[in-house]
Amino acid sequence: ESIPMQTLQCYNDYISLTTCTWMECSEAHQFVNVTLNFNNCCEKNKEMACRFHKGENHADCQNSTMHWVCDIHGYDQRIYNFKFDLTLHAELNVSMFQNVQTLPPQNLSIILMKSGDFLLTWKAADGSQGLGNALEYEVTYKQEWESWEKAASLLLSNTTRCHLSHEDLVPGSSYVARVRARPGQASGFSGQYSEWSTEVSWETTEGGLQPRNLRCLFNGADRLMCSWEVKKEIITSVIFGLFFRATPASVEEECSPVHEKALPHIPYVVQSCEIPVSNPGSQSQYHVSVRANTEEKLIEAYKNSEFL
Amino acid sequence: ESIPMQTLQCYNDYISLTTCTWMECSEAHQFVNVTLNFNNCCEKNKEMACRFHKGENHADCQNSTMHWVCDIHGYDQRIYNFKFDLTLHAELNVSMFQNVQTLPPQNLSIILMKSGDFLLTWKAADGSQGLGNALEYEVTYKQEWESWEKAASLLLSNTTRCHLSHEDLVPGSSYVARVRARPGQASGFSGQYSEWSTEVSWETTEGGLQPRNLRCLFNGADRLMCSWEVKKEIITSVIFGLFFRATPASVEEECSPVHEKALPHIPYVVQSCEIPVSNPGSQSQYHVSVRANTEEKLIEAYKNSEFL
Repeated sequence: ESIPMQTLQCYNDYISLTTCTWMECSEAHQFVNVTLNFNNCCEKNKEMACRFHKGENHADCQNSTMHWVCDIHGYDQRIYNFKFDLTLHAELNVSMFQNVQTLPPQNLSIILMKSGDFLLTWKAADGSQGLGNALEYEVTYKQEWESWEKAASLLLSNTTRCHLSHEDLVPGSSYVARVRARPGQASGFSGQYSEWSTEVSWETTEGGLQPRNLRCLFNGADRLMCSWEVKKEIITSVIFGLFFRATPASVEEECSPVHEKALPHIPYVVQSCEIPVSNPGSQSQYHVSVRANTEEKLIEAYKNSEFL
Repeated sequence: ESIPMQTLQCYNDYISLTTCTWMECSEAHQFVNVTLNFNNCCEKNKEMACRFHKGENHADCQNSTMHWVCDIHGYDQRIYNFKFDLTLHAELNVSMFQNVQTLPPQNLSIILMKSGDFLLTWKAADGSQGLGNALEYEVTYKQEWESWEKAASLLLSNTTRCHLSHEDLVPGSSYVARVRARPGQASGFSGQYSEWSTEVSWETTEGGLQPRNLRCLFNGADRLMCSWEVKKEIITSVIFGLFFRATPASVEEECSPVHEKALPHIPYVVQSCEIPVSNPGSQSQYHVSVRANTEEKLIEAYKNSEFL
């Protein structure tokens, strides 16, 4: 109920005059002019003349409150309403199956298979099973510490499961996945993605000390950026180097400098190095390898003599 | 340089004995055994026998520091190195054009056109122009207060501009857009999305008092959820209702209840209502309209008399 209608009160003097009072928030009055009208046996939509005075503030008004007092001759039973000086409306034709948004998929769960791979399963939300195979799903997953924006994303049709190979997952890590649904492109239906499902998380098995998650990305022009992850505890003793060959026949070169970034909450650091690339052909294939560097030092012991 | 190599010192007694000392962090020792070796004229990769003793902590060690003292006969010039008790390595073959990640698109800007529409333009990152038409772009845009997760997303090929119709934008709102690039599916190249470009923001022109952004989404089963936005200042005076017809011949019904949610930082509230739907055919089209509700009140003035 609007504030004018909430606050509308009418009374009379038993003789010939009916007086009505009502309120309006000043911030609304700034945009819309409201008028009080009545209908009775004989008159339809008759506007009452009102005069403004100041008064106490209504709790729901942000600024000041305008109080109105309106008089009219006669004191019979009346139906009152308020009218605005402009027509406020919007309309839309909605094709039901072109504007579908289902509830998020449910029962998302993860199973560790004998092979060491993981199987993610879910089902369509209650009520959206009617859409059956018309739904497609976006599955995203990431390491716990990564942002969803950089999560891997898979688009799947005609299935409510997703196989995640252990080769695509980093060992000894916490992962989290979620899924959402929308009408598939091929289904003839369309609409928006559902909200994301609840998340499911799991741990991959410990992978030992080997440098892990080695990957390289080419910037399209002149640099190949490689990164890998190393167990935090060993980096004080073991210095890793990145070595590369542009062709199998090339001499192996070492990349420099290697940068290092610690990640919060996980026992690994990310190391990276940029390999300069010149004139890559479309078939160019680099071989890269990460190894513990052998550091050597020449010490001429007789120069460091001391009497023990 | 590793801590063992940093801290390695050797000296001799001028007669027959060379003594070397070095340090190691205990957390690394837990995973990797490090041994000190030397090469000289006559011996190759000879391991030195070392004994452990306690000592001061090295600043780069997380826990305690292990100090080692190693002796060997002779005092000639030697090359020292450290060896580990396990081989640490990882390797990868990288096909350059199957692992592309360019820099983000640059110079993103927005132009207001005479028609009232907006044109978003950008260019490929320096260095990635070589990929030319192989790149496709994802443009996302949203109202300032919305989350990127719910932003509208457009996938574009063979262009570095995007036309945003004013009909798809909410009047009187602040918008923000960003774009990222990846090798197109059809290009024969593949890889990952670039990082997002810097953001560009703009304001759409004020849209007056009309309820705006009316949209309806069907849950695929039994409900059509409609929402719209109303200027915050007028909601104390104007009560909006949602009216609908299932077919052009149906009687118009009113949806109830209407829910209301305020949005921080913008002068609008979101109102919404759920229309129950039974047995929607695939061609079902609802007509919905939002209008100011006419509230009426019957007041029998003589019952409210008072002596003025």
